[in-house]
Amino acid sequence: MANDKVSIIVFSGDLDKALAAFNIATGAAASGMDVTMFFTFWGINMLKKTGPRKGARTLLGRMFDLFMPKGPDKLPLSKMNMGGMGSVMMRYQMAKKKVQPLGEFISMAKELGVKIVACTMSMEVMEIPPEDLNHVDEFAGVAAFLEEASKSKITLFI
Amino acid sequence: MANDKVSIIVFSGDLDKALAAFNIATGAAASGMDVTMFFTFWGINMLKKTGPRKGARTLLGRMFDLFMPKGPDKLPLSKMNMGGMGSVMMRYQMAKKKVQPLGEFISMAKELGVKIVACTMSMEVMEIPPEDLNHVDEFAGVAAFLEEASKSKITLFI
Amino acid sequence: MANDKVSIIVFSGDLDKALAAFNIATGAAASGMDVTMFFTFWGINMLKKTGPRKGARTLLGRMFDLFMPKGPDKLPLSKMNMGGMGSVMMRYQMAKKKVQPLGEFISMAKELGVKIVACTMSMEVMEIPPEDLNHVDEFAGVAAFLEEASKSKITLFI
Repeated sequence: MANDKVSIIVFSGDLDKALAAFNIATGAAASGMDVTMFFTFWGINMLKKTGPRKGARTLLGRMFDLFMPKGPDKLPLSKMNMGGMGSVMMRYQMAKKKVQPLGEFISMAKELGVKIVACTMSMEVMEIPPEDLNHVDEFAGVAAFLEEASKSKITLFI
Repeated sequence: MANDKVSIIVFSGDLDKALAAFNIATGAAASGMDVTMFFTFWGINMLKKTGPRKGARTLLGRMFDLFMPKGPDKLPLSKMNMGGMGSVMMRYQMAKKKVQPLGEFISMAKELGVKIVACTMSMEVMEIPPEDLNHVDEFAGVAAFLEEASKSKITLFI
Repeated sequence: MANDKVSIIVFSGDLDKALAAFNIATGAAASGMDVTMFFTFWGINMLKKTGPRKGARTLLGRMFDLFMPKGPDKLPLSKMNMGGMGSVMMRYQMAKKKVQPLGEFISMAKELGVKIVACTMSMEVMEIPPEDLNHVDEFAGVAAFLEEASKSKITLFI
């Protein structure tokens, strides 16, 4: 049923916004809704493998990679990051308050059947090879997002 | 009727985005729509009381509070804030152009029946006690947002 | 048909978010959807003419203009802008990967019949005269956005 679908564009690569996105996604999936998350631009960083990666072929591609956080444990805060201190404070506080870290939110989303789509145009521009990403169910362009979103009750750009 | 509902997540704690959120919310409510604003993360700052507050119990909680703006008159701009100068310029210019300040937008939203929900997970992580917030109709988690949003025609993440 | 409509608020004046907005808008329009983009706050900067403009009447208005990028080729990145280097890197990489620049995305949107609305309240506050903007089909307030959005299947705040 159309009303049971949620489509979220995860454009941001910030920890706080990623947490909000996965909190909504897992909450919706847990209550029986059909959820698709479409990762684009900086949002793709949180899907990057933390171990050895194939990486970009060109110097510019490697520079993009160099400046960007890899995987869910490295994301900065969108505000008050203070050179990473804000991000550390937030993670510490979340642990103390028994809120799961982002990596566990992502695993939970996968278990609940949330569909993870990675934007091929962003991957092309930032030279991210598919094998460097975790958790991805589908590699697709904007048409795939529109297809899902036009059947969704809730559409968000985060 | 489903088509008459608007659900807005106010994640940002920036003056410009807060103004956009309340401009949409009050505009929708004034035209007879049923509006819910769900305040989470930095967005909660604009609901903080400006007078004496109970505050956080732990040092880390107090540090979060210390670095964050309190109430609608202290929010920075998301861009061109320039150490607060941009924010002052914007407030001055708004007053000159007869656009009401954020605090009045919030009061107007309340009068028009906009429902203000504060995210309990954010309050827990940032150690904000309920009695330190103004204007809140309901303290709730993401499930409450999804409940409203799944019945809404317009859903926005700001 | 309601399901064929998309309404996008373009609040951000950053290159990366503008590209995402126009990628979605042109993709939707190309597949036959009816798209309205409502430009507000920083988002209006990308519509500014790059040649001689009438400009603001007051000193404060001129200061706003001074600090803000003019036209699609001057926008910064929301992250990793690094004093403009990130933005240059992104434009270079996009050209190499045959992704069209923002200016061409805007022209394409116009050709595909995307409706461009400029927020009159933002123009008033930032003292931008209508004749300084390109591509605008309609100058309107928040009520116009709500009118479109309440008939839309997809609503996004970017």
